[in-house]
Amino acid sequence: MANEAVLTPQGEDFPQWYQDVVARAELAENGPARGTMVIRPWAWAIWEHMQADMDRRIKATGAQNAYFPLFIPMSFLEKEREHVEGFSPELAVVTHGGGEQLAEPLVVRPTSETVINHLFAKWIQSYRDLPMLLNQWANVVRWELRPRLFLRTTEFLWQEGHTAHATYEEAQAETLQMLEVYRAFMEETLAIGVVVGEKSAAERFAGADRTYTCEGLMRDGKALQMGTSHNLGHNFARAFDIQYLSAEGRREYVATTSWGSSTRMLGGVIMTHGDDDGLVVPPVLAPIQALVLVVKDEGGTGERAAALAAELSAAGVRTRLDDRVGQTFGRRVTDWELKGVPVRVEIGPRDLAADAATLVRRDTGTKEQVPLAALPSRVEKLVADVQQDMLADAYGRRDASIADASDIRGAAEASGSGFARLPWRLVRGEGETRLAADGVTVRCLQRPDGSLPRSEDEDDLVAFVARAY
Amino acid sequence: MANEAVLTPQGEDFPQWYQDVVARAELAENGPARGTMVIRPWAWAIWEHMQADMDRRIKATGAQNAYFPLFIPMSFLEKEREHVEGFSPELAVVTHGGGEQLAEPLVVRPTSETVINHLFAKWIQSYRDLPMLLNQWANVVRWELRPRLFLRTTEFLWQEGHTAHATYEEAQAETLQMLEVYRAFMEETLAIGVVVGEKSAAERFAGADRTYTCEGLMRDGKALQMGTSHNLGHNFARAFDIQYLSAEGRREYVATTSWGSSTRMLGGVIMTHGDDDGLVVPPVLAPIQALVLVVKDEGGTGERAAALAAELSAAGVRTRLDDRVGQTFGRRVTDWELKGVPVRVEIGPRDLAADAATLVRRDTGTKEQVPLAALPSRVEKLVADVQQDMLADAYGRRDASIADASDIRGAAEASGSGFARLPWRLVRGEGETRLAADGVTVRCLQRPDGSLPRSEDEDDLVAFVARAY
Repeated sequence: MANEAVLTPQGEDFPQWYQDVVARAELAENGPARGTMVIRPWAWAIWEHMQADMDRRIKATGAQNAYFPLFIPMSFLEKEREHVEGFSPELAVVTHGGGEQLAEPLVVRPTSETVINHLFAKWIQSYRDLPMLLNQWANVVRWELRPRLFLRTTEFLWQEGHTAHATYEEAQAETLQMLEVYRAFMEETLAIGVVVGEKSAAERFAGADRTYTCEGLMRDGKALQMGTSHNLGHNFARAFDIQYLSAEGRREYVATTSWGSSTRMLGGVIMTHGDDDGLVVPPVLAPIQALVLVVKDEGGTGERAAALAAELSAAGVRTRLDDRVGQTFGRRVTDWELKGVPVRVEIGPRDLAADAATLVRRDTGTKEQVPLAALPSRVEKLVADVQQDMLADAYGRRDASIADASDIRGAAEASGSGFARLPWRLVRGEGETRLAADGVTVRCLQRPDGSLPRSEDEDDLVAFVARAY
Repeated sequence: MANEAVLTPQGEDFPQWYQDVVARAELAENGPARGTMVIRPWAWAIWEHMQADMDRRIKATGAQNAYFPLFIPMSFLEKEREHVEGFSPELAVVTHGGGEQLAEPLVVRPTSETVINHLFAKWIQSYRDLPMLLNQWANVVRWELRPRLFLRTTEFLWQEGHTAHATYEEAQAETLQMLEVYRAFMEETLAIGVVVGEKSAAERFAGADRTYTCEGLMRDGKALQMGTSHNLGHNFARAFDIQYLSAEGRREYVATTSWGSSTRMLGGVIMTHGDDDGLVVPPVLAPIQALVLVVKDEGGTGERAAALAAELSAAGVRTRLDDRVGQTFGRRVTDWELKGVPVRVEIGPRDLAADAATLVRRDTGTKEQVPLAALPSRVEKLVADVQQDMLADAYGRRDASIADASDIRGAAEASGSGFARLPWRLVRGEGETRLAADGVTVRCLQRPDGSLPRSEDEDDLVAFVARAY
């Protein structure tokens, strides 16, 4: 059911479409303090499913959750030189507390490496304490002059993992393991095909030896960085003096990592799957997977629909009944399409007479008549199918969006509608600057066979460049 | 297994015992910025179980989760007179962001009434939008000069519910409903018997018409306020101009409520159940409900213990295997007792020869020999029994700790070791001031039959007074 009146079409003005869908589907809005965000119940419920799924995957690697303070003494930030240079322009600073000016200003955490590594130094004594694998779910603050809901906000929510290891090699293995956790989550759960690779030095996390990334491609051809994993080497261990006694009795520096993924992924889900009718939520994340919609409440339709909804819930499908027949059918369909509910079960007196209901898929718009007796198993299967099909579609679009280029000019041109892929040696240094002048950045580097490089200095690396959020 | 060396005994110095157990059981420690707290994995895992349980109960009332900004413009706080007076001394203020001084300082939320009611005014148009029932899980900041881990910290974590209703009566019903949710949670999940009642005007939330509370009693005879529910009446609706169009076409102010419970409850669990050997965690909250402890790995004991642990996990019991036989048995027992694991399954070569294991309850220290074949069902039952017995014990202690008093002096004396109960008319006004001089406060008011008053002006109310955290 087309609904031109509600949203600006994507093809006409993608940024306006994004603003429209975020507002009309009641996902989020600006808070009163510049750059802050209010996340409304529908988007929050999607985030809760994302959190639970990601949390399970993180715990499966052996990491434990903990919680670290929001406020960090300014002097902590200054201990790692690159780190403070990277984050200084983005800091929010508390200068007054309890009615008095503070002796030392406090920074509202932009990320927690400094405070967590400070505690690592306290907690880690011997090789027996390693590896130490911690994660926290928290809010962080990075001052944003041009905020965009979910994509760039002064405050955002994320998980940040922080780990300490006996050797550099182990830290590198952890870094890549968490990158793989992110890749699998983004594909299996968000149904987003991502390009993974190493960041160039210019795009690296402030204080990291290496940064790896998952880059999604949005429907407007721009890339979105959706999760990064950093090998911090010995940088923070030196800055915070985190040493351990090895099995051989030597004092050694630990090697640390950090890795994060945020509410920005909600923006990725919206811009990867959404269409001109609104949001399309992957079933795994959908607060409501199947909506049972009463067309008209005549001849016991409402009652039968309620029973069906109960059956679906009992079968483990997250189901809601919409029997608000006081509102027009068209209006209700429009609203649920806006919110992106994956499967709609429409049932009216005519369906009931045929002992059937109409199933509608949000992603494809496909309709089918299904006998009521077969409905629960059919819906259950459809919910699983939609997830698979959405991912296949996302892979297809990602692969189709990668264009090979043989020089900087060609790469800049191809970057209008996706990733341009070209030899890193053509880009490195001068090329990166020239691309930047066109608003194009190096998203990541891969080896020719698609595997992950150990450093940007390897021979024959391939660069993926794109315009990005 | 007594362990005098590790913790200061409760009877000797309760505050020192608390500090010891929080440190030795690795629950929490001070962050580098004064008053902040680091919550370590064991306490965090307990909090996750508390959160999940509370969240389920809140959602069952129809409330939805959302997220509101950390930063609130200072001017918002000033809109409700009593609210700003109550919170001003506790505010943390951000004056600089992105390297520049801000035109208007931002307050780090001490609670979110102001920003949420600002949005209510935007979202609520007609009676059809009511009731609006929202909740958020968030960190808040209230400057603390004398911080104590979990009990009073500058930053703490909580859930705060905020609701808007068509009538004052509905807001009052919501306020009491949420108080009942808290009471049930504290008793069924935390195994803490609480006294519920209305706060006196002096102890009311800043900006509320009525505040209701759940008060726990700690092992040192002091009360701990563990959850409060406020009827805000029309105070915030007037301050933020939240009006709706009634079914009759009139513009009316909504009535609002708020209700909160926090990481402070972790302190309540520690101080209600803990003993001289450490923490005692109620099984519903325990990250590990049953610990399988290999005494010595001889004659296949380790292998059999691992199989037992797997059986217990399969039976739905959260289980961990401790086969670190390189450390002494006594040391390991001490550590797990410190952490409060409810049920210990000890298995050594002698047990194995008898085809049995030894079960030890953390709460009572009771031991029993159980045949291996019967172990999973016995442990499962024991886990449920311990929860029930801990609650029964908590009720018993709460009831035994209430002493009737007939005057202020008697109430002050009885307050050393629990609640004193006396007629509110003896306390009100002058009496409240005299008690305060002795460090005793009115914890709450009840009707003579134990039910909840509608206001402190009702006749014949009974006051519960105590020393409190």
